[in-house]
Amino acid sequence: MANKVKAFGEVMMRLHVPGNKKLEQTRALDMSFSGTGVNVLTALGKYGNQTSLITSLPDNNIGEAALSYLQSLRVGVQDIRRDGDHIGMFFLEDGFDLRPSVVTYTNREISAFHQAVASDYQMERILLDTDMVHFCGIGLAVSENARNTMFSIAEKAKERGILVVFDCNFRPKLWKNNIQRARNDYQQMLQLSDVCFMTEKDAIHVLGYATDEVERKSQIQNLIPKVAEKYGIQTIAGTIREQLQDNKHEIEGFLYTNANFYFSKRYVFRIFDRIGGGDGFASGIMHGLRQQFSKEDIIQFAMAAGILAHTTYGDSPISSDKEVWALVSNHDPDIER
Amino acid sequence: MANKVKAFGEVMMRLHVPGNKKLEQTRALDMSFSGTGVNVLTALGKYGNQTSLITSLPDNNIGEAALSYLQSLRVGVQDIRRDGDHIGMFFLEDGFDLRPSVVTYTNREISAFHQAVASDYQMERILLDTDMVHFCGIGLAVSENARNTMFSIAEKAKERGILVVFDCNFRPKLWKNNIQRARNDYQQMLQLSDVCFMTEKDAIHVLGYATDEVERKSQIQNLIPKVAEKYGIQTIAGTIREQLQDNKHEIEGFLYTNANFYFSKRYVFRIFDRIGGGDGFASGIMHGLRQQFSKEDIIQFAMAAGILAHTTYGDSPISSDKEVWALVSNHDPDIER
Amino acid sequence: MANKVKAFGEVMMRLHVPGNKKLEQTRALDMSFSGTGVNVLTALGKYGNQTSLITSLPDNNIGEAALSYLQSLRVGVQDIRRDGDHIGMFFLEDGFDLRPSVVTYTNREISAFHQAVASDYQMERILLDTDMVHFCGIGLAVSENARNTMFSIAEKAKERGILVVFDCNFRPKLWKNNIQRARNDYQQMLQLSDVCFMTEKDAIHVLGYATDEVERKSQIQNLIPKVAEKYGIQTIAGTIREQLQDNKHEIEGFLYTNANFYFSKRYVFRIFDRIGGGDGFASGIMHGLRQQFSKEDIIQFAMAAGILAHTTYGDSPISSDKEVWALVSNHDPDIER
Amino acid sequence: MANKVKAFGEVMMRLHVPGNKKLEQTRALDMSFSGTGVNVLTALGKYGNQTSLITSLPDNNIGEAALSYLQSLRVGVQDIRRDGDHIGMFFLEDGFDLRPSVVTYTNREISAFHQAVASDYQMERILLDTDMVHFCGIGLAVSENARNTMFSIAEKAKERGILVVFDCNFRPKLWKNNIQRARNDYQQMLQLSDVCFMTEKDAIHVLGYATDEVERKSQIQNLIPKVAEKYGIQTIAGTIREQLQDNKHEIEGFLYTNANFYFSKRYVFRIFDRIGGGDGFASGIMHGLRQQFSKEDIIQFAMAAGILAHTTYGDSPISSDKEVWALVSNHDPDIER
Amino acid sequence: MANKVKAFGEVMMRLHVPGNKKLEQTRALDMSFSGTGVNVLTALGKYGNQTSLITSLPDNNIGEAALSYLQSLRVGVQDIRRDGDHIGMFFLEDGFDLRPSVVTYTNREISAFHQAVASDYQMERILLDTDMVHFCGIGLAVSENARNTMFSIAEKAKERGILVVFDCNFRPKLWKNNIQRARNDYQQMLQLSDVCFMTEKDAIHVLGYATDEVERKSQIQNLIPKVAEKYGIQTIAGTIREQLQDNKHEIEGFLYTNANFYFSKRYVFRIFDRIGGGDGFASGIMHGLRQQFSKEDIIQFAMAAGILAHTTYGDSPISSDKEVWALVSNHDPDIER
Amino acid sequence: MANKVKAFGEVMMRLHVPGNKKLEQTRALDMSFSGTGVNVLTALGKYGNQTSLITSLPDNNIGEAALSYLQSLRVGVQDIRRDGDHIGMFFLEDGFDLRPSVVTYTNREISAFHQAVASDYQMERILLDTDMVHFCGIGLAVSENARNTMFSIAEKAKERGILVVFDCNFRPKLWKNNIQRARNDYQQMLQLSDVCFMTEKDAIHVLGYATDEVERKSQIQNLIPKVAEKYGIQTIAGTIREQLQDNKHEIEGFLYTNANFYFSKRYVFRIFDRIGGGDGFASGIMHGLRQQFSKEDIIQFAMAAGILAHTTYGDSPISSDKEVWALVSNHDPDIER
Repeated sequence: MANKVKAFGEVMMRLHVPGNKKLEQTRALDMSFSGTGVNVLTALGKYGNQTSLITSLPDNNIGEAALSYLQSLRVGVQDIRRDGDHIGMFFLEDGFDLRPSVVTYTNREISAFHQAVASDYQMERILLDTDMVHFCGIGLAVSENARNTMFSIAEKAKERGILVVFDCNFRPKLWKNNIQRARNDYQQMLQLSDVCFMTEKDAIHVLGYATDEVERKSQIQNLIPKVAEKYGIQTIAGTIREQLQDNKHEIEGFLYTNANFYFSKRYVFRIFDRIGGGDGFASGIMHGLRQQFSKEDIIQFAMAAGILAHTTYGDSPISSDKEVWALVSNHDPDIER
Repeated sequence: MANKVKAFGEVMMRLHVPGNKKLEQTRALDMSFSGTGVNVLTALGKYGNQTSLITSLPDNNIGEAALSYLQSLRVGVQDIRRDGDHIGMFFLEDGFDLRPSVVTYTNREISAFHQAVASDYQMERILLDTDMVHFCGIGLAVSENARNTMFSIAEKAKERGILVVFDCNFRPKLWKNNIQRARNDYQQMLQLSDVCFMTEKDAIHVLGYATDEVERKSQIQNLIPKVAEKYGIQTIAGTIREQLQDNKHEIEGFLYTNANFYFSKRYVFRIFDRIGGGDGFASGIMHGLRQQFSKEDIIQFAMAAGILAHTTYGDSPISSDKEVWALVSNHDPDIER
Repeated sequence: MANKVKAFGEVMMRLHVPGNKKLEQTRALDMSFSGTGVNVLTALGKYGNQTSLITSLPDNNIGEAALSYLQSLRVGVQDIRRDGDHIGMFFLEDGFDLRPSVVTYTNREISAFHQAVASDYQMERILLDTDMVHFCGIGLAVSENARNTMFSIAEKAKERGILVVFDCNFRPKLWKNNIQRARNDYQQMLQLSDVCFMTEKDAIHVLGYATDEVERKSQIQNLIPKVAEKYGIQTIAGTIREQLQDNKHEIEGFLYTNANFYFSKRYVFRIFDRIGGGDGFASGIMHGLRQQFSKEDIIQFAMAAGILAHTTYGDSPISSDKEVWALVSNHDPDIER
Repeated sequence: MANKVKAFGEVMMRLHVPGNKKLEQTRALDMSFSGTGVNVLTALGKYGNQTSLITSLPDNNIGEAALSYLQSLRVGVQDIRRDGDHIGMFFLEDGFDLRPSVVTYTNREISAFHQAVASDYQMERILLDTDMVHFCGIGLAVSENARNTMFSIAEKAKERGILVVFDCNFRPKLWKNNIQRARNDYQQMLQLSDVCFMTEKDAIHVLGYATDEVERKSQIQNLIPKVAEKYGIQTIAGTIREQLQDNKHEIEGFLYTNANFYFSKRYVFRIFDRIGGGDGFASGIMHGLRQQFSKEDIIQFAMAAGILAHTTYGDSPISSDKEVWALVSNHDPDIER
Repeated sequence: MANKVKAFGEVMMRLHVPGNKKLEQTRALDMSFSGTGVNVLTALGKYGNQTSLITSLPDNNIGEAALSYLQSLRVGVQDIRRDGDHIGMFFLEDGFDLRPSVVTYTNREISAFHQAVASDYQMERILLDTDMVHFCGIGLAVSENARNTMFSIAEKAKERGILVVFDCNFRPKLWKNNIQRARNDYQQMLQLSDVCFMTEKDAIHVLGYATDEVERKSQIQNLIPKVAEKYGIQTIAGTIREQLQDNKHEIEGFLYTNANFYFSKRYVFRIFDRIGGGDGFASGIMHGLRQQFSKEDIIQFAMAAGILAHTTYGDSPISSDKEVWALVSNHDPDIER
Repeated sequence: MANKVKAFGEVMMRLHVPGNKKLEQTRALDMSFSGTGVNVLTALGKYGNQTSLITSLPDNNIGEAALSYLQSLRVGVQDIRRDGDHIGMFFLEDGFDLRPSVVTYTNREISAFHQAVASDYQMERILLDTDMVHFCGIGLAVSENARNTMFSIAEKAKERGILVVFDCNFRPKLWKNNIQRARNDYQQMLQLSDVCFMTEKDAIHVLGYATDEVERKSQIQNLIPKVAEKYGIQTIAGTIREQLQDNKHEIEGFLYTNANFYFSKRYVFRIFDRIGGGDGFASGIMHGLRQQFSKEDIIQFAMAAGILAHTTYGDSPISSDKEVWALVSNHDPDIER
């Protein structure tokens, strides 16, 4: 059986207010399930990889609904525990132009995922058929349980020679004024990582690096090699994103590996569904590494995948590799018929 | 300013799966907000009473949505506290005929309501313009905080001569195997109550009464006077409900007051939305008492109100008193045009 | 060109509250357009007759929407005037079991239809290609304009030997306490009518007949021949309807023609959409007369058509003649596949 | 009890065609209720002010639905009369880019609001707990009844020292070719006004001023002081709006008070829901005046509030003051999470 | 790895007209995917069995959507071929009471499934991890390709000792006047079958048996043993169904095995979604056989499963075994909370 | 009776995925019916022309739904045959910005339209009341049956002096590598055509012309006169379209007639619904020719009509001539109220 790419991460119920309304204006919600791990594995599964999500879901109808949803995304579910009564949730209110979108989290701490401890998971079995495993920095911040489980899996994976992938995803709000604890946690994860997603902001604000450069691209070129060297990380990738007016972003992807930088084309595009865009990029890099694309192809594929992830409904990237390559090749985006 | 009828109770977000689907079959949910107190006050407000709900709502967009919803039901909101991040929720999956409906609760314990303690509420101000206050037995079971607050308000209301209304609403699941604790709590509330909603089941299973009668109506006629006497309760009311096939119920209301029983007509009817049916009956009794209807009118009005509450969408009874009287008068239910 | 069956009547915008909610519970409405004439012609068109509606619609986007809707029902629109800004409307709130449905009319008097006077219509052209024209008694009650136009068209049709069809549709509410005016108007229309839809109630309450019979069928057998004789009406038809519990009706159709009574089978059935049921019956009779079915077939076809009209969404009957005959033949109503 | 801000104005049923369709393409409508007064009070209530709407609603289910809707917007309803059968309505068809949105009004003249005369309102009670009252120029045009009631309330308010706020809202279509009558009415209202919303267009087209300036901002700086002086108006505010391509507007707010002009930042933004944008600005000014913000803060707050009102669903501005200040502070409009 | 239960069968796109409308009345369709094999495996998967569907889906976005849908139902997809451009479809119009539901098939013959020949499937691999395989008689009628593939798989399964399950599902319409060909095909499949679903109707109309019994149950007791003996079938099961008024059925299940009959309780119930009810029963029998329930439990479980399948949305049974057992145990179908 | 404009063309069921989702993400589809002929006649009917579509629809509920839909678009249906079981279908998945929309066709070849041969149509009757008939090049590619019927009708129309209108609509995908066959077919149709829609691409890629010009407008000015002369075509029209970023197009229409070119204004606009845009332009030209507008008016009207067709929901242009003229006159696209 082919080895699988796995991810350890929380599954959340996304309750989306339709029609750009505010929560108080609606009587209906669109329900789906997502999370960094879910998103990354959805894209990888769509590209043909065998996947499996390491998580805990409640042992009731809510968990049952989450399970069905994950399977409709082609995410492998054989490593999912069922326990407890709760799932993390967020309400998503879409903004419009100058009005920002708003995410309101609720009930994360009591969720099956954040209540589970490392020993609840059958580590040996889980790591048996795995050759790559993905982690997200958000999990470090929300609960001790998730944090410890993450370290535990990452260490065991490292021992077995399984490729450890870590997406920094630093969210200042979650760490509040405890930047020192964040730094310790991130350093610990970076030392275990083979592939890492980060930007110059992570280097500066979390890891404490400084640079004289002022332009973002130069900061990246200055800082990323230092991080890679210090923590012994094979591959670091990320995006340089600038927010323009009217829901538009300008974006360029970078890949740093073997002491070389590779950059994607720059794109200007309008956003349809913001959440999960970064996961689209990350899974593109992971797919490229697994398929041993050329470095140039990896970053082009990943950046195009990330952009398409911003233009599709839902958090989880749903574009096929054929569609990603079509954007790389700059095919005319007129209607396909 | 006219005195108000108030209720102390939890507001929950109801996430209803439309189209009789199971949760795992849907991508959309209908959102509303309800609770025993909400339901009772909605009906009372619709009948023209000034109302106010004593509760706590989260201090975020979720609470804002709940507040707007309560106001659309005409529930007075000036006694509502805003605090915390969470609200209790339930998912409602409608059954069909032999397939039962399913309610899945989540996140109640961490809700703003169950985190609030008695001293969080401004008791003096709250009880100032009140002449009747309603409590529901469910609150006794879910958290110590809500239980203590309930006792505290009921005692203070009693002291001030405010009419205390208590709906037993005994749910065995919530008390699990701690029937003794339930008995203590219920006895304590009954001693504070002027008006109480209960059936022979509560007398037997919670309060420990026994009877030689086998038929339900006889059991009620045997036991309810004993309860009223023992706890010094002015008025006890409830329904004798028999479940028939195909979502139909046969139901008859009773009112025991001044040592006399009054019974409503018996109705056979099909259920559209089960939750909140009992609250429709309870608010009918409360309205009748406030308006000083004749005893016969009170029980007829309340039973018809209860039935209409089973035939309208949502937990909260939304029929006008004109519509309730029309059912009492047995008007032809053909289309009104 | 084949001669057409026409109807003179109001087109109303139907704003239907979905999901059995009350108007105050909804944020969405289902919009359609109907009316007695629309309904009768829809069924007749579906059976293959050429039809045309004589009416007035507002000369704005509302009228444009009505026009498109009528055409989707296959109603001929070449005799429709466009003028003014308003259309009659009604809100339909579906009841459930003991809770009655409610219709709230608004803005009828200022509608293009009720503002139009007889001379606004090009009578000569309208009656040129017509061999049957249908009128409804409701139009007599709402406005002088519609009443006078109705008489004017009926008289001109009578002169030309066009078959005049009149559906009494007596609604006490609309005439309030002016029963004498109603009687005059109805007598005037009956004298012009060749085919009439009525029941013993119309004979008694509108026309002032009395009978010693107590059972409804006997009353009909006693009174209808007297009406037919007095007003020289060729054919009178109607239904004997009894309302049962739980939205069920028991119904039997009758046809009186050439001094003979013909009765349909009796049906017990549940109602899906009450409005337009009578129009389904009426158009069945009209189709049978046009197609010269046997008398027995006419009443069987009409009654089955009327029942199907109660089981389909919307006011306008949409069943094909094949489907009507299938019900007459008592085919097994299990799924057709 | 804190004094309230009130508004006199019509409540209309808004029937919105979803999905940018034309009315003839839809079978479903989104129903809400709005109006200038409703919109202004919704925003003010959201900012924490006690509000109350002075209006008339039909005494049937339609009025009941309107009442529930207004309360969900937190608009105070204790000054609302119930009478008659009709409500003004408008159909809203959203355009797209070069295709304009279309509003089709119907049934305004026969509405409860326009049928009510001044003596129908209990003036004394209404003005008792009021310190600011808002009027809209549209009401002057539609009916004599509304016009006379508006003057009557404004005069009585002026006498009592209640702040009179008047939004010119001049709509040429409504006045057709009777500009002279408009001028008289507007002059009469301006003489009663303490705060007025207008632009140079109103000064020129309604009041007959002329200016040599060609650029809009200069025209405003030239004309507004003259108007303020002539009619003795304390404060005049408005926006300088330029329509760009693709549903974008460029806009800048001005505030003229104590012989000084204050201007907001200029914004370029895309419109989501056009109706009610001006009311968002007006209520921002009113809130700033009530809260005694600095002049600079008032105009910045009002302009940001106006822009957010263009970016939210529905006519009635629903943004919180926290959200308005965030836009003023130019916070990054990326997703809030 | 645990052995799997597989099914060979067509996947069809179900386009369901919502709201009991006719196709010509709707602008929206609910899309799902089903088929006898899909339905049987959905229930078996929900009960915890490993499943896999043997079928062909088009190699385009339609096939991709079908694949995602099947996975959301937990159906194993590793044996699914992708080829061609078409999928079979049916439109489902729900009836109401006396109005029958209507299914309109389209495009079956050109579907990927009916274009595939036996050699397109990798038989060896498919049968490797299988211990039970299900076939449906409908596939015999629609195309030569499917018919031949069915025989080919059944023969190979038989050779390997895999349990062959055959559901007669005889549809007279599909065989038109070629009853002789049907008989041959059915006889051939019966000879290969270990478990068979059929009724006395199949025995009489397809296989040509005669019986003197008139009552259905007696006919079954007379004929089924003869069929079992003649074709060497281990287990035959089916239901005795009587259609009552108002969408109600009375039903009783039978199981004939080892020369003994076992009958379930009789149920009267109302139907919510007719299609797939028989598959709910069949999968209940299969699950009981796999789990080696007692014979009495097998038929009780299967009948309850079949009934629940009639009360859930969609063709594919979605009830858990816990829910099935609850119905067997006759738990009170009041709301579960 | 006024002569009609007719079109020969396929009616397809459009199954549109709402909310910019991919097919695998949706459970609901929006159903409509369209096709080049449908679209052209819808616009012409909206402008007041009598129309009739020459096509074949299946003789089942699907055909019935198509028929009702066409009539709601005001398309004349008296020339429509009913036969067979199938209709061509396409699934439309809307893209967003850089993600292209996708059309997936299915079941066209077996549709009633493509199964019909020329002799199935009653040519004599069809051409009797016709003065203009429209054809689309797509029909040449899909089936021999449609191709031959098209030639047959076009020849008979030409003989009778009926104006033959041909829209090249060359789709390379449909012709695959058989460009030579395409050239023959197009040449044959061009020789029969009086009015033709094409661009320089058709001249170059289909007809094999070459030009030294590099700019598109110059190529058109160079090539179109040659085509007109060679094939004796009275009038050739088309658009010069440039795709910009973010779903925007820049477009300019041309009309070549009597050896003169006429150009419209250039527009930059955003697309709402791409399909049918060209048909909006074509029907604008046809209407202008029928109404004998000046040449300048024809091309301005057609280009504005084409742009509005891109901004309305659905394939079929639904704007009125008043709305088209408003765009030509450059009225302010702010809301109309």
